[in-house]
Parts: sequence; structure tokens; C-alpha cells
Amino acid sequence: MAKAAGSRPLSVVLLGCGVVGSQVVRLLREQSADLAARIGAPVRVSGIAVRRLSRPRAAGIDRALLTTDAVELVSRPDTDIVIEVIGGIEPARSLLLAAMKAGKSVITANKALLAEDGAAIHGAAREYGADLYYEAAVAGAIPLLRPLRESLAGDEVHRVLGIVNGTTNYILDRMDTSGAGFADALEEAQGLGYAEADPTADVEGFDAAAKAAILAGLAFHTPVTAADVHREGITGVRPTDIESARTLGCVVKLLAICERTAGGVSVRVHPAMIPRGHPLAGVREAYNAVFVEAESAGRLMFYGAGAGGAPTASAVLGDLVAVARNRLAGTRGPDASTYADLPVLPMGEALTAYHVDLDVADRPGVLATVAEVFARYDVSIKAVRQEGRGEGAQLVIVTHQARDAALAATVSDLQALPAVRSVASVMRVEGEDNQ
Amino acid sequence: MAKAAGSRPLSVVLLGCGVVGSQVVRLLREQSADLAARIGAPVRVSGIAVRRLSRPRAAGIDRALLTTDAVELVSRPDTDIVIEVIGGIEPARSLLLAAMKAGKSVITANKALLAEDGAAIHGAAREYGADLYYEAAVAGAIPLLRPLRESLAGDEVHRVLGIVNGTTNYILDRMDTSGAGFADALEEAQGLGYAEADPTADVEGFDAAAKAAILAGLAFHTPVTAADVHREGITGVRPTDIESARTLGCVVKLLAICERTAGGVSVRVHPAMIPRGHPLAGVREAYNAVFVEAESAGRLMFYGAGAGGAPTASAVLGDLVAVARNRLAGTRGPDASTYADLPVLPMGEALTAYHVDLDVADRPGVLATVAEVFARYDVSIKAVRQEGRGEGAQLVIVTHQARDAALAATVSDLQALPAVRSVASVMRVEGEDNQ
Repeated sequence: MAKAAGSRPLSVVLLGCGVVGSQVVRLLREQSADLAARIGAPVRVSGIAVRRLSRPRAAGIDRALLTTDAVELVSRPDTDIVIEVIGGIEPARSLLLAAMKAGKSVITANKALLAEDGAAIHGAAREYGADLYYEAAVAGAIPLLRPLRESLAGDEVHRVLGIVNGTTNYILDRMDTSGAGFADALEEAQGLGYAEADPTADVEGFDAAAKAAILAGLAFHTPVTAADVHREGITGVRPTDIESARTLGCVVKLLAICERTAGGVSVRVHPAMIPRGHPLAGVREAYNAVFVEAESAGRLMFYGAGAGGAPTASAVLGDLVAVARNRLAGTRGPDASTYADLPVLPMGEALTAYHVDLDVADRPGVLATVAEVFARYDVSIKAVRQEGRGEGAQLVIVTHQARDAALAATVSDLQALPAVRSVASVMRVEGEDNQ
Repeated sequence: MAKAAGSRPLSVVLLGCGVVGSQVVRLLREQSADLAARIGAPVRVSGIAVRRLSRPRAAGIDRALLTTDAVELVSRPDTDIVIEVIGGIEPARSLLLAAMKAGKSVITANKALLAEDGAAIHGAAREYGADLYYEAAVAGAIPLLRPLRESLAGDEVHRVLGIVNGTTNYILDRMDTSGAGFADALEEAQGLGYAEADPTADVEGFDAAAKAAILAGLAFHTPVTAADVHREGITGVRPTDIESARTLGCVVKLLAICERTAGGVSVRVHPAMIPRGHPLAGVREAYNAVFVEAESAGRLMFYGAGAGGAPTASAVLGDLVAVARNRLAGTRGPDASTYADLPVLPMGEALTAYHVDLDVADRPGVLATVAEVFARYDVSIKAVRQEGRGEGAQLVIVTHQARDAALAATVSDLQALPAVRSVASVMRVEGEDNQ
């Protein structure tokens, strides 16, 4: 590791100068005196790697600092700290690995890279004794990873339930409050800049799944990758699902769920109904929140802006103060510990409850036939509601917790029943007290 | 500072073995394997200082570790880490100072000491190069101080609004949901163990004021003591105040408010009405939550259990993992920075809004007379509601923000008006978006 630098200015280079990067540069300039006081030495930006020099830049970006040669920047002898805000797998991975090998401290907001190849990135940090901080990678400005990694280091986390994607929360919130359909709510989110032109990463749950992998790894001290995460998006959520949730006293959220069970860990992202009294139910618009259940600490929640240039830059600067202090002290922060090395369980093993909405024929014996299918897979029924719907009837069944495989098999058999005209909707129910 | 200890077990001594101390001992025993893996060395309890050896102890407390000689424990050559859970000023202060002087790392849950004499405690940590951690001192298990001190170190905090006393939140929540009076709600809280036999420290706001001082110091990088905090408790909150709040779409909470203004910082604890849509309004029962507004991060909230043996012990153990890792690495955590050294403004300078409930004579000209008093002190009226009450009328006025001194002078003049029979209630309104 590079030695302490006295009060020599610390030299920071940025990889990427988009929405987050330009906010980082602005804050470094505007708060330079405060930052110097908190760190114990001034910090200066000595280079910014971009793809195209000619692109228009935010005001205040010194064009003399721009370069397309990121490899040179991260290996410059006088570079102390590398901030990576490019995103994506390559060239971010190669640049971060090169930076750590060259003795630099690194800060990244790259959830995709950490979720896909966290083991290699963490391994390099250990091997080269480099600082690796990434608070901005999950839930933007919300201080979440440091609390999980450090404040709760003396506790046993049982479960993490998170709303970690602001785009989908905005869409589901609009569907709940205005009755809009998915397509209209998505269009509105796009108009407000909450959703991208190609919304796939958000609405199909890829973004949330990457964050779930990072959260599960930190919470349970075990390696988890994005590929381990069961993922379902919100494109199939319809106004009738929202309405059914309301009848049940619930609201629909896209949840990242990380659970520690006897056999290992379960990590999944899917829409779910949660009771309106649950602290996560009140998280509106594009806000994020993460609910943590720990053995001793009990129930905790962290709430705030999950995205945006300035909030994400705030998280990057918090990391910057930490790594800068570490560098001056000639030390480094704690490694992410993965000593537990727990198996990641398949989705079928997850314990959850289902809300099943069936269109059934309105004739004697239907309820008995349907109930028999649930019993076949040992799924216990918690509540039933039946009422007329057109020529047939609507039969809504809410189950107690059971293995997801048993619930899925139940639904599959229900679909094959002649008395069941269609399975109108199936949604998991989470966050109930008896879970 | 003591040098790195290789994989030699780290020796921990406890000062105090009450509700929190006995939970710390239990967790250290039950989670010893996990803690050793996360720290990199085993941790063993080598002594527990108590006042009386003969007192009954929780199961699992090894009586051979008990001693009444705390001074000997903290200066033992092989002691690495001192955990102080005695509370109060002395002997806690002398013991912590002696421990730091002897090169020990210290962890304390002592909000009263840090709020009264934080400068001396922090000064000793700096002078002797000792680690000083105290996450458990504010809001129990909620990871809050580390995020403020570290994650937000690159941001500018404008305001902290906290529900930091579970006892008073329970009482106010009961008054809101059941219509109970203060005395009945207090009795219920005492029956459930949420309030002590002598509830003064909680209901008069002393506990919240100590926490407010610690929060303000960390948030604004400036020294603040409990004596700097304007403090009003909840003993004067009546069911009619709760009812008035409801009419206004608000709920009454005891808030710790820390604000950075142009002239300095303002730190105060008092009951206030906050809008039911505010994230703090949904904090029920004995839960705590702290809402932070920062320049870049925006609005954040931290929520969880604010007290109790196990939650507080979880915070102590999180600190233990950090100081143990630091000790093994031969380094120490960041000092609390107080470089800003801002003036603490008197309460009269605080900007707030008032809800004023007046019993007035029901005759022409009363409203004009009352309105003139507000105008006299340049207090802008936001809303007025008047309706018959007995022989007179009830006149409720909600103001826009103004200096507290102007609002107090207004109320004082109103009391002297012949047309005003009585000022039925005055309560501040906080947490509105236009603030």
C-alpha cells in the first residue's frame, strides 16, 4: 500500500464524467475547504477519463483534465484515489484491477460489476492491500452498505427486504395512487426522467437483482452473484393486482429479498404485496428504502433517494473521505468478509405466501376441488374470498407460508382444473408479522 | 497506541453489567465464532466491573470475572478494549479517561457523559491516540452515528429531525391512537417497561436533549453540549393538542431538532406537530427514527429500536468489531471533527411555526385585534379557523415560519388582550415542505 502522504494534496482521478461524475467534480470543488478539514489534507482532481473529448460537459469541468487514456490515469505514480463512475463490466473491471494493482485506493458505484464479478474485485483488493469502497452502488445516497458491513458486524442479519429501484417504485406508486396501467405509468416515469428510454434493466428487475446480490453478500458474509438471484420484473403487474392488494390491505412493491435460512441463503427480486402498515409500504415515488431484520438489533429501516447525480455523488464523497483518511493514516478499511460461504438456495426452496386470484365456474363443488389442490401440496390456506364475476365467480385465496415450489405446483395444477377458467393473477405476499 | 496483536485473543473488559452489559456478554459468547471470523482474532471477556458482587446476575455471567475494582480492570496491561455501560457522569468519565491514557480502545453507550463533557472525552482520544466509539449512545440499535460521521462526511447536513426517545414516542402514540391523557399513557408505558418509575429524564426531554447535542456535534462538525440545547418535555401535552394536530393533518411528536443556519447552529427538543405525510409521522410505539436533510443526499431516514438490552448490545458489538479490527491493524478510527466551531444560537433565533389555540370572546372585532398582534411582530398567518366554543369562540391560528422570539412575544401579548380569555394551547409545527 502507498505510504501516508503527510499533508501533500491527495490526487484523485475520475473514470467517467456523466451525471454522477460531473456532480462529484462539482462537490469536490464547492466543498474543498470542508473536505480538506475533514480529511486532514486537500484533495485535487488530477484527471478525468472520458470516451469522447469533444462531448459537451457540465459547467465547471476543466477540459484540460480530460483524457481518453484511462489506463494511463489509473497507473500514474502520483494518483492516490480512483473513482469509477463509468458503469458496466468492461472497461471498468480492467481499470479497477489495474488501479488496485498499482496501489491506488478505489471507489466505485458499479453495481453490475460488483454483482457479476465481486469475488475478483474483492480478491484484488485483498491481494494488493487496496481500499475498495462502493456505498453508491446500492440505494444511491442512503448510507446502507457501511452500516451493514460495519455497524451490524456484531449482529446476525436474518433478512433484508429492500425497495432498491426507484423507477419501478415510482411506476407501482403511480399505479396505486392514480389507477394507471403499467404502460401509462412507465411513460409518465420516462417523461419525468425516472425511467430510461430502454427501461429493461429497471422494469425487468436486473438492476434490483444486482443490488440484491451485493446486499446478500454483505448481510450474510458470503459470496453471491447476480446469477444467483431469482428475478421477476413488474411488466406483468396489472391494475387488478393493485386492486387485489388493496382489498387485502396491501400495496404492491418490487422487493429485493435476501434471507438467511437453515440451509443457506435465498436471494430474489419480484413484485410482492406487503401490508400497508409495514414501514416499506409508505415508501413513495422514486424513493428507496431497505428494511433489515437482525437478531439483536431487531427491525431497522434505511430510507432515502436511491438515484440521481447529487445523491449518488454524496455517497461517493463519503467514501472518498474514508479512503483519503485511511491513505493518510497508512491503513485501509475492512475487507468484505465472505468467510461463511453459504449455499444459495434455488427459488423453489424459498418460503413465501401466495395471493391467487382465480376465475372459476359458479357451481357446487368448485371450492372443494380447488381446496383439495392446495392440500395436495401441503399448502395451508389463510384466507378465502369468493364473489360473483360475470357468469362465473372470482375466488381469491391467500396462503400461509410454504415452499415456493409447492405453491408453484399448486398453481400449475389449478390451471389444469376444468372448474378453473383462468388463473387471473398470482402474486407473493411478504412482510407479514408471522413470517 | 498498542501495537497489532497478531492472532492473540483480544481482551475485553466491561464496566457495568446491567441490562445492556449482560446482553453484550451473552452475544460475545453466543457469536464468538462469527465475531472471530469477522475480526480476524478471537475476543474474550477478561473482567466485568460491578458495584456489588452479591447482586443476582443474568444466567451465563461467569462470577469469577466480576470485580468491584474498575480502575484495576481498565489499567490491566493485557486489556485491549474497554466497554463502558455504567451510564452517568462519574465514575464513567474517570474510568474512560484512565482507559484511554493506558492505551485502551474504548466503546461507550453513555449519552449523558458525551453530551456534558464530550470535548474532554474526545480530547483524550486524540491526545492518547485511542479509539472512541459510541454508536449505542444515540437511538440504540439504529446505525446512525457512523453514517453521520462517515457516510455523510462528504456532504453538508442542513437539518436533523429525530424521534430519539422511545418512552415519549410511546406515550404520544398512545395519546394519538387511544385518546388517553398524558398520565394514563405514562402509566401504561410504565406497566410495559417503556418508562421508568421516575420518568423525568424521558418525559422532560433530558434524554432527548443529550442525544440532540451529540447529533448536532456530529452533523455540523462543531462542539455542542447538553446545556446548549433548548429543552421542553411532553408533560404539558394534552388530548386537545393531539386533537388540534389531527384537525391540522398532523401528529404530535417529541422532536430533537438540529439545524445549521447562516448564523450558527440551533439545537432544541420540544413537542411539535408534524404533517401525517412526513416519514417521521409513521414512527409508532417506542420506535426511534432520525430524519436527515443534506445538501446532496437529500432526505434520508434511519429507523429502528431506540432502546432495549439486545438492540443496544448490537450497536456495542458493531463498535467492538471496528475497534478490534483497528487494533489488530495498528490503526484507529476517525476522530469526531469539530473544526467548524460554530456558535449555538439561542432559542429565540430558531425559525419555526406556531399553532396557537385561543379561547376568545365571541364579539365583533376580536379577529382584527388578534391579527394585529401577529402583525406587530411581523409574524405571517398561514391559516385561521374560528368556531363557537361554549359562550365564546375558539380561534386557531397557524403561522408561517418566524423567529421563535417573535412568536413568543406574540403569544405573550395575546395573553394580555382583554378579548382573549385564555391561550388554550401553543405548539410548534415542524417538518413542513416549505421550511
